[in-house]
Amino acid sequence: MDDVVDTAEPGREPRTLSRRSLLGLAGAGLAAVGLGGIGGYGVADARSSGAAPATAAPSATRTYPLTGAHQAGIVTPAQDRLHFAAFDVTSTSRTALESLLRRWTYAADRMVRGLPAGDLTASPYDAPPSDTGEAEGLPPSGLTITFGFGPSLFADAEGRDRFGLAQRRPALLTDLPHFPGDTLDPARTGGDLCIQACADDPQVAVHAVRNLSRIAFGTAAIRWSQLGYGRTSSTSTAQTTPRNLFGFKDGTANIMAEESAALAEHVWVGADDDPGASWLAGGSYLVARRIRMTIETWDRASLREQETLVGRTKASGAPLSGGDEHTAPDFALAGRGGAPLIDPASHVALAHPDRNDGARMLRRGYNYTDGSDGLGRLDAGLFFLAFVRDPARQYVPMQTAMARNDLLVEYLRHTGSGLFAIPPGVPDGARLSPTDGAFVGEQLFA
Amino acid sequence: MDDVVDTAEPGREPRTLSRRSLLGLAGAGLAAVGLGGIGGYGVADARSSGAAPATAAPSATRTYPLTGAHQAGIVTPAQDRLHFAAFDVTSTSRTALESLLRRWTYAADRMVRGLPAGDLTASPYDAPPSDTGEAEGLPPSGLTITFGFGPSLFADAEGRDRFGLAQRRPALLTDLPHFPGDTLDPARTGGDLCIQACADDPQVAVHAVRNLSRIAFGTAAIRWSQLGYGRTSSTSTAQTTPRNLFGFKDGTANIMAEESAALAEHVWVGADDDPGASWLAGGSYLVARRIRMTIETWDRASLREQETLVGRTKASGAPLSGGDEHTAPDFALAGRGGAPLIDPASHVALAHPDRNDGARMLRRGYNYTDGSDGLGRLDAGLFFLAFVRDPARQYVPMQTAMARNDLLVEYLRHTGSGLFAIPPGVPDGARLSPTDGAFVGEQLFA
Repeated sequence: MDDVVDTAEPGREPRTLSRRSLLGLAGAGLAAVGLGGIGGYGVADARSSGAAPATAAPSATRTYPLTGAHQAGIVTPAQDRLHFAAFDVTSTSRTALESLLRRWTYAADRMVRGLPAGDLTASPYDAPPSDTGEAEGLPPSGLTITFGFGPSLFADAEGRDRFGLAQRRPALLTDLPHFPGDTLDPARTGGDLCIQACADDPQVAVHAVRNLSRIAFGTAAIRWSQLGYGRTSSTSTAQTTPRNLFGFKDGTANIMAEESAALAEHVWVGADDDPGASWLAGGSYLVARRIRMTIETWDRASLREQETLVGRTKASGAPLSGGDEHTAPDFALAGRGGAPLIDPASHVALAHPDRNDGARMLRRGYNYTDGSDGLGRLDAGLFFLAFVRDPARQYVPMQTAMARNDLLVEYLRHTGSGLFAIPPGVPDGARLSPTDGAFVGEQLFA
Repeated sequence: MDDVVDTAEPGREPRTLSRRSLLGLAGAGLAAVGLGGIGGYGVADARSSGAAPATAAPSATRTYPLTGAHQAGIVTPAQDRLHFAAFDVTSTSRTALESLLRRWTYAADRMVRGLPAGDLTASPYDAPPSDTGEAEGLPPSGLTITFGFGPSLFADAEGRDRFGLAQRRPALLTDLPHFPGDTLDPARTGGDLCIQACADDPQVAVHAVRNLSRIAFGTAAIRWSQLGYGRTSSTSTAQTTPRNLFGFKDGTANIMAEESAALAEHVWVGADDDPGASWLAGGSYLVARRIRMTIETWDRASLREQETLVGRTKASGAPLSGGDEHTAPDFALAGRGGAPLIDPASHVALAHPDRNDGARMLRRGYNYTDGSDGLGRLDAGLFFLAFVRDPARQYVPMQTAMARNDLLVEYLRHTGSGLFAIPPGVPDGARLSPTDGAFVGEQLFA
């Protein structure tokens, strides 16, 4: 559980450092920069600035270390905001790809600690700054950055093995099958690499993706990206269950960070799961689905219909068989006329582990609203993110059952999709450097 | 200044009431709702719930009253998140339009106080709920809802006066002129009505627009909408200046809520400004511009070029003539070679009141990131919002000068636009009712 702590590790600077305090420290020298036009843009590198009193709220100054047995952003408590990006690698050089991952790891490690993506004091005035600057003054905001590899990294659409990785492709890392009713937009689907940036401030999450995209220039380019807000799942028993855009509590049965046995069983890839891809041990698979909700139709459905479809009460989230939010649903309990109180075609029934061979997931999705379409309807819904040990067993059967369910089809449309292998973390204590340091996914290239 | 207070008004319920506490109060009865299938979805109406201890942070429970001499959302301290929506009126009935504004005002008044948009206890189980529910459990989060009227409400594209309002159109309420370099998308431009919803939680802002859109069904439909985050301006001296996506502090010279003389001079429409549209006295004009930034190009510009274009240092926001963020720029001060330290074509020079006949604005814009375009570039930039007394004098000349400036054209592209008349507020103490209450903009229909 080394990646859910929010206290200082031994030998590291205190974790309450904020960018704001950095600016304060550097403030005295700034006018000179403007007049003289020399040096970086005057922000001291926090590595050497020592501790400063934090002015922001404790949660805003929380940091999660990039390093650890597993990548952060999986069992770390779900933050409030997301910027997810899928990249195409535009270079065909394996060396360039490794260099990118090394530079990404280095910059990500800096940013999750609230530092600029690069050392600004080393940037010449006549060169682009090594950080874009819009997160200056903002605290780390619990930023996590999680990297993943898509199937096309191992063999592209034409079957080419651009990077000599085909032999190491995990057997489970294939494009998800076409599900009934899928209306996937190719411009929101797939990708060679992915980055999930989560933070409690959207500007911090967007800043991370933007800077990693900037660093990738010439090697990889964003294929698609998605912003999200208002996490739809809890990943810790300390969090309350939030509501999705149907107005219902979502993810009540989620795997929690505190359930270490369940994490080992359902989330982390085991050492012997895939002998041909042992590099993925300690990692996971990420299923990403952009699920548009037909909000306007839903909003005209009666409360009775809404609760029947979901299988829970809207106010408390309790199953329709009674109790409270965390009461186990009783699918056998019948009401008037002998019909079960929970419809067998409801979401809670279809998604329940009992109906899915015991499969559970660690869900970490977000609501999204991307403005409106040309017909006056909000383009809004759920950006579903789930970490699983085996997507073929834990996701595909459940989604197949849900997609066949006529009750829900009216209200949900899958418009984007991706499956990514999430490598394990960079070990604590590893030396990070943009030129020759350790990096996320290094085991794949060993 | 009655709309910037965050304390209870006499005779109103305490302003720290949160939706979360409402759910707690109603919790005991919820299982019965699920089993029995009767009534609303079990949430007590806060009007009758009395005071409850607030569990969220003070800022999250802050509320701004809808009523007052001016609408909220103008001089109220800028919140962190925005959902802006422009509507087309689909009905041709003046009565229906008035009814919509009345129902909007009633629902908005409820939502800014942290209540559901309608009284859920009065909703039959076999009818759609009178609130969509996704903000249940969330505190009011400083929500403000601001309504405006576009030029097309008074005369549509074919010149038709659908609602008998043409004679009352303010002389200044016309479509903004075409500026050099404008690449406006008709699907992001114009609108008969607008709603600016701001809150410190995006789910609360989106919830407000969604419910107002739901209420408008059959009378008006969303034409376009825009989400924003990370306010780019301060509207109170108590706020620090945030950064835009160029990484620079933005809006340093903004009019502040504390400057009552400046507000009267530059923001509020005076009683004698437009004798033909006296209904707008105490209101304002809202200029909305979606300004895409070519982020990737900017990120490859040197710090020298970035600071030259903006006219300020990136780190502190001080003008290049020296001092700190709030030091007045000295456009005459020359450096080496006799050239002025601040380029006359820089943003700070072009936007300065001295260059614009003393014109100032109350800016209240937000950053936006709408994913990526098909070329791997972020679709990101500034959703510019400014409140002015006279757009023809305070906005058009400045934007004309900026648009002609070759330095900036490379980095900015205006892709959406709107001008709206913002009526004054509903007076404090007015009776609000969805059937026969007072409403925002009522003076226009008198």
